[in-house]
Amino acid sequence: MFTMLGIATIGTSFITGAFIQAVQAEPLTKMVAVYSRTQAHGEQLVQSAGAADVPVKTSLAEVLADPAVDIVYIASPNSLHFQQTRAALLAGKHVITEKPAFTNPAQFAEIERILNSRPTQYYFEAARHIHTPNFKRLQQALEGHQVSGAAFSYAKYSSRYDALLAGQTPNIFSPRFAGGALQDLGVYLVYAAVALFGKPLAAHYLPTMLESGVDGGGIGRLDYNGFNVVLRPDKTVESRLPSEIYLGKDTLWTENIAELPSVRLYHGNGEDYTDLGTAQPANGMGPELHDFATIIQDKDRSRFADLLQLSARVNEVLFAMRQDAGIQFPVNVEAVPIDE
Amino acid sequence: MFTMLGIATIGTSFITGAFIQAVQAEPLTKMVAVYSRTQAHGEQLVQSAGAADVPVKTSLAEVLADPAVDIVYIASPNSLHFQQTRAALLAGKHVITEKPAFTNPAQFAEIERILNSRPTQYYFEAARHIHTPNFKRLQQALEGHQVSGAAFSYAKYSSRYDALLAGQTPNIFSPRFAGGALQDLGVYLVYAAVALFGKPLAAHYLPTMLESGVDGGGIGRLDYNGFNVVLRPDKTVESRLPSEIYLGKDTLWTENIAELPSVRLYHGNGEDYTDLGTAQPANGMGPELHDFATIIQDKDRSRFADLLQLSARVNEVLFAMRQDAGIQFPVNVEAVPIDE
Repeated sequence: MFTMLGIATIGTSFITGAFIQAVQAEPLTKMVAVYSRTQAHGEQLVQSAGAADVPVKTSLAEVLADPAVDIVYIASPNSLHFQQTRAALLAGKHVITEKPAFTNPAQFAEIERILNSRPTQYYFEAARHIHTPNFKRLQQALEGHQVSGAAFSYAKYSSRYDALLAGQTPNIFSPRFAGGALQDLGVYLVYAAVALFGKPLAAHYLPTMLESGVDGGGIGRLDYNGFNVVLRPDKTVESRLPSEIYLGKDTLWTENIAELPSVRLYHGNGEDYTDLGTAQPANGMGPELHDFATIIQDKDRSRFADLLQLSARVNEVLFAMRQDAGIQFPVNVEAVPIDE
Repeated sequence: MFTMLGIATIGTSFITGAFIQAVQAEPLTKMVAVYSRTQAHGEQLVQSAGAADVPVKTSLAEVLADPAVDIVYIASPNSLHFQQTRAALLAGKHVITEKPAFTNPAQFAEIERILNSRPTQYYFEAARHIHTPNFKRLQQALEGHQVSGAAFSYAKYSSRYDALLAGQTPNIFSPRFAGGALQDLGVYLVYAAVALFGKPLAAHYLPTMLESGVDGGGIGRLDYNGFNVVLRPDKTVESRLPSEIYLGKDTLWTENIAELPSVRLYHGNGEDYTDLGTAQPANGMGPELHDFATIIQDKDRSRFADLLQLSARVNEVLFAMRQDAGIQFPVNVEAVPIDE
């Protein structure tokens, strides 16, 4: 006997709107609450997401106490993910946290400790791209091939960069909110690398620092046995660089490793390629939500453990890259109350 | 009264063939000799270049003593450029040296010292791409714009890499011959950066080292005041990464910064662009040869000095990047006799 999983959301930016639409399109899930500190922001969100019937709550404690809520989806500023995930898990909820889930391996270890003592609860990091059909095509295409390198790029001029240039400090460019290009866009690249190639032997990051104290962009390199992966996140420039995986003289290619509109296998140095891609879903968050809901429904602890390990490795790699680059987030981000 | 400049070439690889064809197509120049240690290699070269009437010489001393030779074009392995350039200048010839011209700033300083005492002689580094129409379009497009970054890529699987994998050490992958991806392909990227943006404040290079002792590829970064330039040379993978110059929200784009088949200005984050390019010459070495011959003919010491300074800066940057990466070439490369 199956009942739809009830979902509550935290956060009011556009990504939460896309997630609400994915919930409404997914037969296994339904929206039961939207949390916002500000009633007006919450109302605006449900309106714009076409979900005006979903109740807006301004008390997170009330949301966490609501038995209709099975899963809490957290898309607050990065530095708040840990406290909110911890609180939701302790309240007995499953949790989906937007990437990057937590700020450092110590936070991750604490969440793993809580999960270990609660074997009926599930936690997922919302790395949407690795759940899409074309990412799976990419994984299949690698089977039996020796990888000789990769270059993953995601560099888009942020609308918030104008605010930063005008003297403000938007959350996404604030160390207090654990922001920056590596955290915000680089996480897609690190996730792709770790999902495809496993945990690297070493991780480097050469950032371009902004005055706000985070990286506006940078160059990363993940070292593997016999090859390496170059990463190019940036939030201050508008780039059309594709992403590539090198297989000797052949090359796996996609316009964009975060969206994967197509996947091509180029043969040698010419223009000749085989199209390996399929249609990607209109709502990029649909496949991950379906995977998460299915794992919960099936009590699939094995797939859960695999995704948790992947999430932990990505957390370690991002942390190692920030350490290499000297990017520090203030310790007091962990002291923010859960209703912030 | 003008007489065609007589040219002799050193080196028998495909690039010398392309240069011979450029010489024959250029009204200001004519071929007078091809030098090769091996008569058969020289014959093969003139045949394949459609220049069977050009005499092949196996004595470099004889070539340098020939009054019909005005210009010596040097396309030997990198480590031989210095000795051969020095010998040709001392013999009273103008010299065109393939890029990268010299291995370190000490060699460059010695060549400059010789040039200073010979004000009627000319020396040029054959950085063909910066002389092409589309490179000039790129330069024009930058006028009055604030640059916010750039990413230049040139990564092509070398036919010689198969030989390296098979246990041989081709010149291009040998430290003895001052090879490697930065020297061979990175020089195009560094030239473009220094020609467009001037000398960087700092230069970094994170190489992927091969067992032969040179880099198979790497990631470079040139730091300028307020922006930086990412460089991606590689000879072990087949890449289709374009090259980009960031102008805030707009982006100057070319498929390939070494060939510049097209130049586009993308507006904002969409697909909309203005085509800024024009037709590139069929023989990519034509424009540089025309520029060099015109400078010699016009005795244009000002343009000569500008190009010499550019060449010196590129030499410094490449050297700084190799120092940063710990790539060392054996000192004894300088002791090779000129006829090697």
